[in-house]
Amino acid sequence: MAMRLYDLAGADPKLRFSPYCWRAKFALAHKGLAVETIPWRFTEKDVIAFSGSERVPVLLDGDKTIPDSWAIACYLEDAYPDRPSLFGGAAGRAPTRFLNSWADTVLNPGMIRFVLMDIFRVIDPKDRDYFRTSREQRFGTTLEAFVAEPEKHLPAFRQSLTPLRTTLAAQPFLAGERPAYADYIVLGSFQWPRCISAFALIEPDDPIFAWRERMLDAFDGMGRRAMAA
Amino acid sequence: MAMRLYDLAGADPKLRFSPYCWRAKFALAHKGLAVETIPWRFTEKDVIAFSGSERVPVLLDGDKTIPDSWAIACYLEDAYPDRPSLFGGAAGRAPTRFLNSWADTVLNPGMIRFVLMDIFRVIDPKDRDYFRTSREQRFGTTLEAFVAEPEKHLPAFRQSLTPLRTTLAAQPFLAGERPAYADYIVLGSFQWPRCISAFALIEPDDPIFAWRERMLDAFDGMGRRAMAA
Repeated sequence: MAMRLYDLAGADPKLRFSPYCWRAKFALAHKGLAVETIPWRFTEKDVIAFSGSERVPVLLDGDKTIPDSWAIACYLEDAYPDRPSLFGGAAGRAPTRFLNSWADTVLNPGMIRFVLMDIFRVIDPKDRDYFRTSREQRFGTTLEAFVAEPEKHLPAFRQSLTPLRTTLAAQPFLAGERPAYADYIVLGSFQWPRCISAFALIEPDDPIFAWRERMLDAFDGMGRRAMAA
Repeated sequence: MAMRLYDLAGADPKLRFSPYCWRAKFALAHKGLAVETIPWRFTEKDVIAFSGSERVPVLLDGDKTIPDSWAIACYLEDAYPDRPSLFGGAAGRAPTRFLNSWADTVLNPGMIRFVLMDIFRVIDPKDRDYFRTSREQRFGTTLEAFVAEPEKHLPAFRQSLTPLRTTLAAQPFLAGERPAYADYIVLGSFQWPRCISAFALIEPDDPIFAWRERMLDAFDGMGRRAMAA
């Protein structure tokens, strides 16, 4: 039986924009494992309560339940060792975790300023009150005020990508000569604005831009073909 | 013959505080390779001109000359494959490069605000004019103004360490279960204030603090025993 993955969806169930869910989907594709995704909305916490998590992705593999994107990557690596390694080999896992931490605490929090209102626009109407209340509490301001004047915040955001940019100026992929989970972490983040926003976060002459183009070609254009709204 | 390493020194030739040189010295220790360090001052550019670089570290191994800390790590890894791997294995090199880029572009630029005046204080008198002029041009202000009110900048600096902190809350070393070059990169940075400054950059309850203590024990306390001024 194919695995199943609870995957954040918009009002249109085909619209899937969660950076953390994209990490899991690219990891499954890298391992060549089929998955059936189950559209999930922010307020359907009861649906995944059995997992112990209130957030997606949640992976189901037979009788196993694995929440959290990093835990999913490690699970897939350990449970399917004969498939291509997500870390290029055992030694890649620990330093990739640093990149994962950087994406969680620098890249995604920096990016959300540019996509927050778009998330609100595309989510299921039943999620809107929850989304507005929880995010306005988290950011201490209204959604509208938080996303105001994105151009003003763009230079600092682009500056925060410097470690990514200098790495990709030196090697074709974050994982080295071939893409692996290090790349899917960051590609997942870029799928977020890609699926729901028209705002251009990086410029065509940025080494990150060319890397993203290469990554969007992976797995028969899996990232590129994702529905956008 | 032992290798030789040009290593930035203060007025006291025993005082060695360059984060990039520390990376190279820890890498050599990890490989179990003896090295003779040669004290070098900022203005002795003619002494290392043969290397093509104006900065240290510069490593000499027989008839080979290798400048740049990352290039030195890669050289040692490739030239001495039977010694313990600096990357825990081949797959660790590429993602470690991201951490190296982060340290070069986030950690060290963030830290220099707290050590710049101390560098000026400890360097050889012949270096002082060069150091003041080049740094005041780089930072667009006087040394004294750049380092003013360090307490004001401390929260943002500690915040910038979040990816490091969350990684070290999840695993004992940046390289995983055992220290390797990923750890030496960051330890090198912390040797900078350790050798020349009394300012406390991290608090004892920070996971980074406990990690640094573990790292200072490595190689018979090599980092801990370094001369401080």
